[in-house]
Amino acid sequence: MHDLKWSPSEKAAARKAFDQAQKRELEVVIREVKNRANRLDKWSDLWELERYLTECGKEVDSKYDYRYSVLLMVFGRLIREGLLSEQELHGLAEDNLGYIRLVATL
Amino acid sequence: MHDLKWSPSEKAAARKAFDQAQKRELEVVIREVKNRANRLDKWSDLWELERYLTECGKEVDSKYDYRYSVLLMVFGRLIREGLLSEQELHGLAEDNLGYIRLVATL
Repeated sequence: MHDLKWSPSEKAAARKAFDQAQKRELEVVIREVKNRANRLDKWSDLWELERYLTECGKEVDSKYDYRYSVLLMVFGRLIREGLLSEQELHGLAEDNLGYIRLVATL
Repeated sequence: MHDLKWSPSEKAAARKAFDQAQKRELEVVIREVKNRANRLDKWSDLWELERYLTECGKEVDSKYDYRYSVLLMVFGRLIREGLLSEQELHGLAEDNLGYIRLVATL
């Protein structure tokens, strides 16, 4: 694992970016649930919606892990998935950004 | 348990009433999900919706049991819950209707 050192200002920048990505993800999920709700027609549609929410819960739990030991990986994934831009990580140390960029390309 | 005898015409009437009640229940649940979807705002709202759907699934599974051995109880409950009217059970034998009425008052 990358050797991690987080200054207070880096921590603040990281928290802000993390919350921003999670807010975006929430908006995406809410939009999807509303779309599915509008198309509900039969029982199986309801159970599919239930499954979708269950999967969402698992994914969100695993994706938004704010431990500093895994945060660069988390940010890399969020950039890869389009939930965060590199510009929003402004304030992080250059070596941390380099590692995030690397993870984003995986 | 009530002694059950179902003629072919009673079975047809029972099936029709059962399907009608289940269709109504589906409409109620879909309406509720749409209302909840419109009010979604935060993660916990999503997980509450998931729990609601899970509970619905369990209730629907237990409520809509078409075994003839329990069907009079099922109809009694559906009348009690306003998902079926006695008129919609027209075609069932009078002793079966009497039993359903009794269950409906429980």
